[in-house]
Amino acid sequence: MSRKGLIHILTGEGKGKTTAAVGQAIRAIGHGFEVGLVYFHKYPEEWEYGEFKVLRDLGVEMRGFAKKHPHFYEESSPEQMRKECLKGLEFIEKAFDQNSYDMLILDEINISLRDGFLKESEILDLLKKKPKRLNLILTGRGAGKKLIDKADLVSEVKEVKHPYEKGEKGLRGIDF
Amino acid sequence: MSRKGLIHILTGEGKGKTTAAVGQAIRAIGHGFEVGLVYFHKYPEEWEYGEFKVLRDLGVEMRGFAKKHPHFYEESSPEQMRKECLKGLEFIEKAFDQNSYDMLILDEINISLRDGFLKESEILDLLKKKPKRLNLILTGRGAGKKLIDKADLVSEVKEVKHPYEKGEKGLRGIDF
Repeated sequence: MSRKGLIHILTGEGKGKTTAAVGQAIRAIGHGFEVGLVYFHKYPEEWEYGEFKVLRDLGVEMRGFAKKHPHFYEESSPEQMRKECLKGLEFIEKAFDQNSYDMLILDEINISLRDGFLKESEILDLLKKKPKRLNLILTGRGAGKKLIDKADLVSEVKEVKHPYEKGEKGLRGIDF
Repeated sequence: MSRKGLIHILTGEGKGKTTAAVGQAIRAIGHGFEVGLVYFHKYPEEWEYGEFKVLRDLGVEMRGFAKKHPHFYEESSPEQMRKECLKGLEFIEKAFDQNSYDMLILDEINISLRDGFLKESEILDLLKKKPKRLNLILTGRGAGKKLIDKADLVSEVKEVKHPYEKGEKGLRGIDF
């Protein structure tokens, strides 16, 4: 890798943001890149997202923070959630310092912002510290204008059609 | 798998359609699904898409048809391209008959339609033959209204921001 790494945002209401980030990871792994994944608001130990197992087997280092899906926020306090999100930022900054990845995915970090646990200024400050060659991918609904201004590549996934009601767990192998 | 498989379309001008399909494959593999990938208008032997190597290592069966990217159509005739796309449809129908996959990705098949090598009626006829439990994913720009009507789940990836001009090869590990 000699070229500048990108800041890539996957946002919008539609299905395919996390899976697109996972696909980017697979593409990058195919070229021998070191890939890391930091996830927010997910609890893979309980929900059995199929991709975690495969990514782990492929050598992707994974670390989760604020492991409460928005449906389960009431199990925690906003103060506790903010504290855990800040720990996530701290972890990411350390990963930046150690410069150990070619690609780092911050899955659902936009949700931490949307739901008020992180401030936009905190994420913008983080982006300023990105190592030049690192490809950084941020996923989740609710990426605001300032975040989009700082990104190199932004895709918005729109939901044209969806087969079941929001809040349903969805299909094994498709939704998790 | 006991539930009905979905027809899932990933369309739109933005970046993330094929990578979202690859991510869906990874998710499905994590649950032990058998996954197949049929690609159109790609020539991985030359372009070195990073995901092909990894998916092959994970046991995904892959088969390509009409292996000319739209930038290189002039190297072939439209008749030849149509013939190869029809071979692709034949292959997919056979895969349906053998019922050997839990998920089958038809990568860039929408481009065969958009560029006039396949007729909408041919793809609609194909969809009618889908085995009930198979999850079928179609990617590519240009999915029309009739195709969308037949799908269960449709995501449109909009391009909000893109860092370089169309037609550039892009970044290793990001774009291929």
